[in-house]
Amino acid sequence: MVSIVLIGTGNIATHLYDTFLLHKAINVVQVVGRSEKSLSFFAKKTETCLIDETIKTAAIYVIAVSDDAINSVSKKLQNKKGLVVHTSGSVPLSSLTYNKNSGVFYPLQTFTKGKKIDFKNIPICIEALQKDDFLLIEKLAKIISNKVYTISTEERQHLHVAAVFVNNFTNYMFTLGNEICEEHKVPFDILKPLINETVEKIADLTPKNAQTGPAKRNDFDTMQRHIEQLRSKEKKKIYKLLSESILEKYGKEL
Amino acid sequence: MVSIVLIGTGNIATHLYDTFLLHKAINVVQVVGRSEKSLSFFAKKTETCLIDETIKTAAIYVIAVSDDAINSVSKKLQNKKGLVVHTSGSVPLSSLTYNKNSGVFYPLQTFTKGKKIDFKNIPICIEALQKDDFLLIEKLAKIISNKVYTISTEERQHLHVAAVFVNNFTNYMFTLGNEICEEHKVPFDILKPLINETVEKIADLTPKNAQTGPAKRNDFDTMQRHIEQLRSKEKKKIYKLLSESILEKYGKEL
Repeated sequence: MVSIVLIGTGNIATHLYDTFLLHKAINVVQVVGRSEKSLSFFAKKTETCLIDETIKTAAIYVIAVSDDAINSVSKKLQNKKGLVVHTSGSVPLSSLTYNKNSGVFYPLQTFTKGKKIDFKNIPICIEALQKDDFLLIEKLAKIISNKVYTISTEERQHLHVAAVFVNNFTNYMFTLGNEICEEHKVPFDILKPLINETVEKIADLTPKNAQTGPAKRNDFDTMQRHIEQLRSKEKKKIYKLLSESILEKYGKEL
Repeated sequence: MVSIVLIGTGNIATHLYDTFLLHKAINVVQVVGRSEKSLSFFAKKTETCLIDETIKTAAIYVIAVSDDAINSVSKKLQNKKGLVVHTSGSVPLSSLTYNKNSGVFYPLQTFTKGKKIDFKNIPICIEALQKDDFLLIEKLAKIISNKVYTISTEERQHLHVAAVFVNNFTNYMFTLGNEICEEHKVPFDILKPLINETVEKIADLTPKNAQTGPAKRNDFDTMQRHIEQLRSKEKKKIYKLLSESILEKYGKEL
């Protein structure tokens, strides 16, 4: 049994909490937040307290707050003997300055409020300086996920940038595609099978080998027509920059 | 029964051919290509001929060649009485200048050589000027797909640009993410569950509502650090432009 105090009440905290509750080997002894209101969801099933009240004792303190608040939470926990971990993709392990036993427990996924997600397939990137701390984090990670990776702070920070490209920017491409559909009154749903196949393709091929489209095949007439067709300057600029970058990658220049 | 002559031997022609052969209601009477070599795959099961030889008679002539060759194939078919359709996303219906009965039969999907794909879920965008032509194209489309849409040339051209964003540019985001992983020796596979969830999210949410990440939440510190971390000028430039565009969309500016 691993006892946990969870600090944070946002999106990641909520998803972690729901998952921890599914496992008998995990005991969430307390959830800590900044306001009674933010704690009300957790208070139904678990003891809660405000950040300046008495935090209970646990084997692991899981900090799931915004990046810029991690260090101050670390300070609040300075007298605790347990292991303190944060859950951020971009904050160094070393930012847990106030805790002798510290580590990182980073679930690499995009979480949507209200949409349950199965943690079994979510990669958990873990890191610790001391062996005992590492083993304890690993124990917790393996209870909830089948995909546990040992990842250093530096590697994690690069993964986080890569995640911005494959998740945030990809979703933004969907937004731009959706806007084009709305402008011209064609249903965005027509593009959904194409979007699914775009992802299915990279199960077998590297993304570099999966590339298709006018820029890849140096079809300048089509690119020119597309740029003329686009209504906003912003979309024209993005279309040009990404096409030029693809052209360059595959050996040609505009 | 719909009789078909298929003109073209490339990726789309091959996928259409494989699909046509699955349906008893479709009879592929001939495949037409530019060389014996390109026709060898089709010649195992179907009569073939070179483009300047005698093309057989059929109800529908399906042109599946590169965009810039469509008009010249249209000319080769000028004495045919059947319906001539092309399969391109960006070429106007009016470019089939030599054919009295003409139309468009555009399967909106990305096709990978050697990867079989179920056409039942592929949207087929169809268009014709004359009612009888339209009904015949619709008949063919409905044999192979459950998703048949009536789409004008103009709508189709906008869909094609939108497809570049959601497919070509999305795949390119995967390429850039993959490169970052390779540069820093972390496995790209860690990002696959995130990529899958990125797509699953937009089944329920609009892409605009599904947006997350540092640009969306105005996290300038993280964006600054990410740009510094990126090794290539090209990736820095793309990161900046897309982040600025997201910031602007959600009401802030850098």
